[in-house]
Amino acid sequence: MENAPHIQTESIPLEDSDNRILQEPVIAHHAIPLFDKSPYDGFALRSVDTNNATKDKPSICEVVDHIGAGELPAKALEKGEATRIMTGAQIPEGADCVVMFEKCHAYEKEHGSYISLDSPLEAGENVIEEGQEVKKGETLIAEGTLINPGVKAVLATFGYKNVLVAKKPLVGIIATGTELLDVDEALEPGKIRNSNAYMTASQVLRAEADYIYIGKLADDLENSFQTIEDSLEKVDILITTGGVSVGDFDLMPEIYHKLSADILFNKVAMRPGSVTTVAKIDEQILFGLSGNPSACYVGFELFARPYIQSMLGVKTPYLQHVKATLAEDFPKQNPFTRFVRSFITYGINGLSVQLAGMDKSNVVTSLAHTNCLMMLPGNTGNYKKGDTVDCLLLENVNGQQTFQ
Amino acid sequence: MENAPHIQTESIPLEDSDNRILQEPVIAHHAIPLFDKSPYDGFALRSVDTNNATKDKPSICEVVDHIGAGELPAKALEKGEATRIMTGAQIPEGADCVVMFEKCHAYEKEHGSYISLDSPLEAGENVIEEGQEVKKGETLIAEGTLINPGVKAVLATFGYKNVLVAKKPLVGIIATGTELLDVDEALEPGKIRNSNAYMTASQVLRAEADYIYIGKLADDLENSFQTIEDSLEKVDILITTGGVSVGDFDLMPEIYHKLSADILFNKVAMRPGSVTTVAKIDEQILFGLSGNPSACYVGFELFARPYIQSMLGVKTPYLQHVKATLAEDFPKQNPFTRFVRSFITYGINGLSVQLAGMDKSNVVTSLAHTNCLMMLPGNTGNYKKGDTVDCLLLENVNGQQTFQ
Repeated sequence: MENAPHIQTESIPLEDSDNRILQEPVIAHHAIPLFDKSPYDGFALRSVDTNNATKDKPSICEVVDHIGAGELPAKALEKGEATRIMTGAQIPEGADCVVMFEKCHAYEKEHGSYISLDSPLEAGENVIEEGQEVKKGETLIAEGTLINPGVKAVLATFGYKNVLVAKKPLVGIIATGTELLDVDEALEPGKIRNSNAYMTASQVLRAEADYIYIGKLADDLENSFQTIEDSLEKVDILITTGGVSVGDFDLMPEIYHKLSADILFNKVAMRPGSVTTVAKIDEQILFGLSGNPSACYVGFELFARPYIQSMLGVKTPYLQHVKATLAEDFPKQNPFTRFVRSFITYGINGLSVQLAGMDKSNVVTSLAHTNCLMMLPGNTGNYKKGDTVDCLLLENVNGQQTFQ
Repeated sequence: MENAPHIQTESIPLEDSDNRILQEPVIAHHAIPLFDKSPYDGFALRSVDTNNATKDKPSICEVVDHIGAGELPAKALEKGEATRIMTGAQIPEGADCVVMFEKCHAYEKEHGSYISLDSPLEAGENVIEEGQEVKKGETLIAEGTLINPGVKAVLATFGYKNVLVAKKPLVGIIATGTELLDVDEALEPGKIRNSNAYMTASQVLRAEADYIYIGKLADDLENSFQTIEDSLEKVDILITTGGVSVGDFDLMPEIYHKLSADILFNKVAMRPGSVTTVAKIDEQILFGLSGNPSACYVGFELFARPYIQSMLGVKTPYLQHVKATLAEDFPKQNPFTRFVRSFITYGINGLSVQLAGMDKSNVVTSLAHTNCLMMLPGNTGNYKKGDTVDCLLLENVNGQQTFQ
C-alpha cells in the first residue's frame, strides 16, 4: 500500500458518475433554501396582523397575490394582506409567517378573496429560513466519497454539470498455463477452461477499475516474457494468474528476474493464496496470483483490491471486518491463517456465516456463493456452530481505513 | 408486487454479464475434476509397489514419464514405474497414488531417473478423484442469482460462452414542476435545480435497470399529458417526480384520470413519501413519486426498487431488514411510520446506525450520506443512544424475499 501512486483525475459528466470516487469536495455554491420559503400549501402573511385573533373575533386578511412553486411573489405585503402560496415557493416581502389551508377559512366577498384566522401566528411560523439547511460555502461532501444516488442529487442541486473523479486504473489480465482452454473450446483430456481471467476481470470491475484481457500464455518463457513486457506499457497494473508456484513449468519467477522486478513478497503464510507474489517495476505493480481459482480469488481481494481502491482515492480501501455467528460446525484444523470462502447473511438476529461450499482450494463452485471470507487464525480448528468468527465482507460498498 | 409482469430474457456474452440476473440454472456439463488428478507437484505411482517400504529398505521406482499441467500421460505405468507429475495434471493409467517431491528421494543413476520411498502409500492417497467436487449434471447455481465474480468463474468453467439473463427493464424518468432548472442553468429567484431526475436515474441503475430521462415538464396539463402518454409507448416503467400532492399546480391526479389509469394507491401512511402514487395502465406501472427529494428517494426505494427487482427475476426483491444499535439520541415523535435517512456502519462490535443529516424531508444533503433507512413505527419517539432499531439496507447486494 505504500507503493500506491498518485491518484489520476478526470472531469466527467454528472450523469455518468455513478460509483465513481469524488476527487473534489462538494461545496455549497449557494444557501439552501436560497430564500425564505413555505413548507406547506397555504397563505403567507404578517404575524403582526394576527396578534389579536380569537375564535370570537378572527383576524381577516385580503388575499392579494398567488404564488406557485417556481413563481415569484408579485407584490410585497402591506398591512392586512396575505398571499396564497404553494409548497416550496418564496415568502413575499413583508410576510413573516405561513398558515396552512386547513388552519384558516378562505372565502370570497365583493370581488375580493379573504382569509380569516382564529388564533395568532408567530413571526417565523411555518417559514423555512434562507440557509437553514445549508450555508453558502459549506463543504457538504468530502473528496474520496463514492458517488451514490444521494451524492448525485447534491451535485445536481449545486450545479455540478461535470464532476472531478479519480480515473479508473486500467488493469491488464494475463492467464498463464498450457492447460487452459478458451470458454468456447470443447474440453480435451488434461485441460480445463480458463475461468480465472473471467473471474479476475469481474473482480476488477467490482473494485471499480477497468480491465483489458491480454490473453492466455502457454508455458513458454521467451513468448511469455515478451508479452508481459509489452503489456506493462499499456496498463497501470498487471495481474497474472498461474505460473507462480515452483512447479517445473512455472515461469513467473524467471520472468520477474528478467524484468529486474523488485519482488515485494512472494509467499504469504495463509491458505489459500500462499503463492501470491507482488512485484514492482519502477512505479508499476505486478500481482502474480495463483492459478488455482480460489487462491486467485482470495489473493485478488486481499491484495489487489485495496491497492486499486487506494489508486481511486478511496479513504477506506480495505475489506470491511465484521464479527458473525457461525451457523455450522467447522472442525478442520490448519497451521496457517485461513480465508475461508463463506456466505454471510444479514438478518434481524444479526450476522450469520456459513461455508460457501466444500473448503478445498480447487473448488471453483464454492466461489459462486461466496460473499465474505471467514478469517481463521493459524493453528485453530474445531469451530462450533454459535461461535463468533471474523469475516471480511466482499460485496459492501464501504471498506475500512486499515487492515486489522 | 402482484402486478409484476413476466420476466423478459436475453442471451448475452459472459464477459458482459456482471451484476445481471441469471435466468437459467447453471448445470455441470461435466464432472470436476474431469479425471483423477494430482493435488501436488510430485510423482504418481502404484501404491502396491510401496507396500513394504521402510527406512531401511526403501521402495524404488523408475521415473518413466513427465506430465505438466495440461499435458497428458504418455504411458500407463507398469510394476515399479513412476511418473513425474505437476499440480492439476492427470494421473496416468496404472497409478493410484501420488507422493509429494518433499516426501521422497529422487536421483539419477545409469541414464535412468529413480525415486525411493521409505514408507508405504495407500491407494487413492493424494489423488483428487474424478467428480469429487462436482458430478456431471448437478445444478450448481439456481436461476435468479446475481452474477458475481464467482458465478462468472463457474460459468466459464462449464463453457457458458453466452448466458441467459433477465432483460433490464427500461425506466422512463420525467421530472415535473415549473420551478425546475437544468443542472447547468444559473439559479433564478424562486427556482431550484432539478436534482430528482439525476438521483432517480442513479437509483434505477443501482436497482440494475436501465433508464431514459424523458425531460422535465412545466405545470401545463395538455403538454404534460401528451408527453406522458407518448412516453408510455417507449418504456417498461414510467417514473414521474413531483405533481402528486394537492397543490393548485399539481397535475398528476388529472393526468392519471385522463389516462384512465387504475390508481393502486395514492397515499401512504408514512413520512417522508406520503404522497407516493402508484397507478396501472394495462400491464404497465406508473410510479408517481413526490417532488420533494427525500420523499422521492424513499418512495423509489420502498416501491419502485422491489418492483424492478422482481421484473429482473430476483428472488429477494425487498430491501434487507436488519437490527442496529442507535448511535445517538433521536427524541422526535411522529404519528406516522418513519423511514429516516440514516448511515449504518458495520464494525466488529456489530451494526451501528446514526442519522444521515438533518431529519427534514426537504434536506437534500442528508441523502448523500444515506446508506439505510431507519424504520420507526408510528407514534414513537424519544429513542435513546443504545436502543435497538430496525433498518433497511440500501447498498447491499442481497435483499429478502418478503417485506416484513
